[in-house]
Amino acid sequence: MKTKILSMHDIRTIVTHVGLDRLMDEATERLFGACREFEQKRFEIPLRDGFEYSLPQMGLLEWMPVMKTGHCATLKVVGYHPHNPETKNLPTILSVILTFDTESGHLIGVVDGTFPTAIRTGAASALASRVLAHPDARTLALVGAGAQAVTQLHALSRVFDLREVLLYDIDKATSNSFENRIRNLSLPKLDVKVVPLNDAVGNADIICTATSVEVGQGPVFEDQDLQPHVHVNAVGSDFPGKTELPLSLLNRALVCPDFRVQAMKEGECQQLGAEDIGPDLVELTRDAERFVTYQKQQTVFDSTGWALEDHVMMDLLVSRSRELGCGTVVQIESISADAKSPYGFLGAKSLENDTDDGSEPCQLFAVD
Amino acid sequence: MKTKILSMHDIRTIVTHVGLDRLMDEATERLFGACREFEQKRFEIPLRDGFEYSLPQMGLLEWMPVMKTGHCATLKVVGYHPHNPETKNLPTILSVILTFDTESGHLIGVVDGTFPTAIRTGAASALASRVLAHPDARTLALVGAGAQAVTQLHALSRVFDLREVLLYDIDKATSNSFENRIRNLSLPKLDVKVVPLNDAVGNADIICTATSVEVGQGPVFEDQDLQPHVHVNAVGSDFPGKTELPLSLLNRALVCPDFRVQAMKEGECQQLGAEDIGPDLVELTRDAERFVTYQKQQTVFDSTGWALEDHVMMDLLVSRSRELGCGTVVQIESISADAKSPYGFLGAKSLENDTDDGSEPCQLFAVD
Repeated sequence: MKTKILSMHDIRTIVTHVGLDRLMDEATERLFGACREFEQKRFEIPLRDGFEYSLPQMGLLEWMPVMKTGHCATLKVVGYHPHNPETKNLPTILSVILTFDTESGHLIGVVDGTFPTAIRTGAASALASRVLAHPDARTLALVGAGAQAVTQLHALSRVFDLREVLLYDIDKATSNSFENRIRNLSLPKLDVKVVPLNDAVGNADIICTATSVEVGQGPVFEDQDLQPHVHVNAVGSDFPGKTELPLSLLNRALVCPDFRVQAMKEGECQQLGAEDIGPDLVELTRDAERFVTYQKQQTVFDSTGWALEDHVMMDLLVSRSRELGCGTVVQIESISADAKSPYGFLGAKSLENDTDDGSEPCQLFAVD
Repeated sequence: MKTKILSMHDIRTIVTHVGLDRLMDEATERLFGACREFEQKRFEIPLRDGFEYSLPQMGLLEWMPVMKTGHCATLKVVGYHPHNPETKNLPTILSVILTFDTESGHLIGVVDGTFPTAIRTGAASALASRVLAHPDARTLALVGAGAQAVTQLHALSRVFDLREVLLYDIDKATSNSFENRIRNLSLPKLDVKVVPLNDAVGNADIICTATSVEVGQGPVFEDQDLQPHVHVNAVGSDFPGKTELPLSLLNRALVCPDFRVQAMKEGECQQLGAEDIGPDLVELTRDAERFVTYQKQQTVFDSTGWALEDHVMMDLLVSRSRELGCGTVVQIESISADAKSPYGFLGAKSLENDTDDGSEPCQLFAVD
């Protein structure tokens, strides 16, 4: 009963082998498949819970559980520490993902969650935008140009023929470093411009907000002169009281949450009554044709981050790691040959040398 | 920013070096210190939460969080699968413990939780029994002779001069294998007898119940002919509806929970009103003299398992691993040199070769 650990090094091996574009495409397609196959009764996805604190600095540590009944459970633990970049040169979001076998309670795998969180948040926006944004979208506004802006751009560039990125961040250094941070991506046709906030949002076909705006300090842009067909991916809201979008826009637009109950607690949907909230990501994905008319109207994807997305990423990375034979295998849990002997593992008759390589598949969804 | 992993092999190294008796003593003393120093306002210890299911077999997967504010947070994930021993030759309880730095969200360590859970559950009973049981206790009854019975006996044998163990399990094979399972312990003066249930509980100075009794099927023994000074450590209850002790005993005895709100939800205290519940483990430990008179009366320690105990074990094991230089150090989280560049770690300027060994101290309590 070993545990497979996929480290940063293993993620790098996988990305080098698969390619960043193909990985993003695969994440988007797997998420698409997962949403289409999703059946409420086969899953339990409780609201995330966690610690919030203001000491030593403002932060959040949350766990996001999801279980496919009779199969396995994934728990992502994610830290949100907006002062990380300036004070520690660490990402705002740090994370790990754990998967457990619900037949035995065994920890199957521990995987970096930082990279998959960035990818899946991009993939979710790509999926929602594929349904709701104008298919000829060429101009993307990024409000907030930090780490998430990179993956938002990347994911959307795989779905739309983007030509122009209009960039705004309250921190000029962050705006200025953006081009350098997307040089891993091959986007030869793309023109990146740092512009005033109103110019960014007013000229965009698609807007992504991914800010660390403080609780009660939203919205991050004014509701004026937006394109009649603009689609907004609001990625930053993930906490009660934190919102990024103007209420008047939300009232007017079709607002689609990733995970309804969570979005009503922590997302833009906090600002709305239940009756004013549109279809969620699963409904959007299943019934895309029905929403084609909205491509010419104003729409919002309220992305708070859904545990199912993490589950999908865990599957993807574990499956790729098995192909490539990467990962570290460790016998973490102390298990004795006699299950009722808690000290039995200290002696010779332990299970340390069993041949199980810890890479039990945990495929949750069929992928075409 | 590396993560230290303590595997079964590392635990074995630590135990071999420290010795099982000394480790149990250290766990008990650290838990004693932690309870004495414990201040509600410096900690957050939410109730555990989790998944319960009946497919593929009856089981629970729970997470138990604890945070020392401004410092670090520990999350133990624990599986309870009572069919594990018979169907998989695995322990009923499998577990891992994770500790996060709440300054950054970084995962500091991943440690086997199976062995520490067994040890700390023993240590908690030893601590409560030191206050509440008769100091001349010589006879211990074990109701349920599985894995937990071994560590209950071990922990109590470090505090009391036990001469006799009266053993009862509904499964004869489990009773019969018990002596073999305690041969790691040096208990030369101890006489182990398999006896009928009533003989076991009726002759005991201390009783430990550690059963997998099903919801609604308790109590596991009748309230008749118990010693007037008997102390009971009820270890098995950990789930709504699951209880081990007769209500009449609870009504008569001083009942002390480890963690009051949790015990009222999942422990023996479910059977009592709030006004009928005595001091908790922290109060017992702080004010032991006040409870000396109860050593001649009937008392119950309602042990549901408290996250603080896991925190203490994590500290103990991490601190010993640093002395011995054991553990595997892995860069799990993908972190780029530029915190706002989620793909930066893929290139050459990553932090992979930083010299941080991941063994940041997370000492929560001073230990004399």
